[in-house]
Amino acid sequence: MNRCVGVFDSGLGGLTVVKELKKKWPGQRIIYLGDTARVPYGTRSPEVIKKFAVECARFLEGKKVDKIIIACNTASAYAFGEVRAAVSVPAWEVISYGAKGTRGSKKIGVIGTRATIGSGRYEEEIKKINPGAEIKSAATPLLVPLVEEGETSGDLIEMAVGKSIAGMAGAETLILGCTHYPVIAPVIKKQLPGVKLVNPGEELAREWPGENTGGEDEYYFTDMTDRYVRVAEMFLGGKLTGKAERIQL
Amino acid sequence: MNRCVGVFDSGLGGLTVVKELKKKWPGQRIIYLGDTARVPYGTRSPEVIKKFAVECARFLEGKKVDKIIIACNTASAYAFGEVRAAVSVPAWEVISYGAKGTRGSKKIGVIGTRATIGSGRYEEEIKKINPGAEIKSAATPLLVPLVEEGETSGDLIEMAVGKSIAGMAGAETLILGCTHYPVIAPVIKKQLPGVKLVNPGEELAREWPGENTGGEDEYYFTDMTDRYVRVAEMFLGGKLTGKAERIQL
Repeated sequence: MNRCVGVFDSGLGGLTVVKELKKKWPGQRIIYLGDTARVPYGTRSPEVIKKFAVECARFLEGKKVDKIIIACNTASAYAFGEVRAAVSVPAWEVISYGAKGTRGSKKIGVIGTRATIGSGRYEEEIKKINPGAEIKSAATPLLVPLVEEGETSGDLIEMAVGKSIAGMAGAETLILGCTHYPVIAPVIKKQLPGVKLVNPGEELAREWPGENTGGEDEYYFTDMTDRYVRVAEMFLGGKLTGKAERIQL
Repeated sequence: MNRCVGVFDSGLGGLTVVKELKKKWPGQRIIYLGDTARVPYGTRSPEVIKKFAVECARFLEGKKVDKIIIACNTASAYAFGEVRAAVSVPAWEVISYGAKGTRGSKKIGVIGTRATIGSGRYEEEIKKINPGAEIKSAATPLLVPLVEEGETSGDLIEMAVGKSIAGMAGAETLILGCTHYPVIAPVIKKQLPGVKLVNPGEELAREWPGENTGGEDEYYFTDMTDRYVRVAEMFLGGKLTGKAERIQL
């Protein structure tokens, strides 16, 4: 079998990271796992997030992947150490890459799930490379379920975004610290004109050592409803091609 | 130990059912299980809902409950048969009780999760007792996450409710087919003045054979974050008293 990278996420949002990886490495073979039976992770406790993330990583290791990417910001924030300890292949998270996207900016905003923001991991990573910056963080828990329901434009998402990012006025750079947010970048941009948006998945793809291995991609999900293809393709920004299968963790 | 009833739900919303049971049977000892590590169920497939519900019911049977109530509408819709087959104590669901609350009404609306509405169970039960009625159903998936985030009044929930129940104009009776909705009854009522709202938990409590057994209640959750007490008490409409513990299923 061709060499491949395993990418896991709490659900389908991680496909925005796959989209960026494929832009940079169109021939990279990917094995994706979305834990759609237990999504979202961002409302759960650190203990549960760690347990779920390790189960995802072990599944991918069982599929003989050569590398693992934690696409989910929440799992990256809490479970990177646990995942590295649990598997024998190298692993990447997205937080430190998202932080790098703020280079040169003095006023930085971060939005994410309640768990991601609560972890303080983005602040830690931003301070390493941008010690003097002013950082404002906000948990924006309304945005994930609205995007999942296809509310990516119109009055309702505009009101929810406005309410969620009210404290971000004045930010020069805003980290989209959840895989769902790139899909509503235009709505965010409209309310913060002139802000530079950072997509951690895109920052990761820029530096990550991919390979144009070729070979069929495989998608595994812990649940598959009759609307998963539609939602998956919203995040992927294109057709879901390759094998797709439901599995139990 | 005093006799008791086991009540399970996908998360904390089932506490609106506990609230109704306690109104009718203040001395009823209750053992509650909220599957907060895997909430929500209403966006998942029938297979996954059945599996999770059976795991919940078996946990309660292990706690020596004498009866089981499935508080969650989604689990009631898909897993009542499976739960009855899996445990040896009698079990109740909420759908058929919600349907009974429509007696005498000719224009009936039902709102619920995507899974509950997709099951068609409310229509089935309504037709049994109200054969000539005109029934309109709508999945209203935006409402659960908004309520979970404490959005129970104000512009955002009003807009989301307006969008969600736009098709319900003209309904004389509206079944609140998800445990989260009683909390936003005033918002719904404002947009459908004159409608009779049916809370299936209240209808169940009216007929259900409780006992004022006395004894300390016990609450089990598959996850407990630092905000679970606040959210639990929003649904319960009062203080969470009794033992509370995190467990794994």
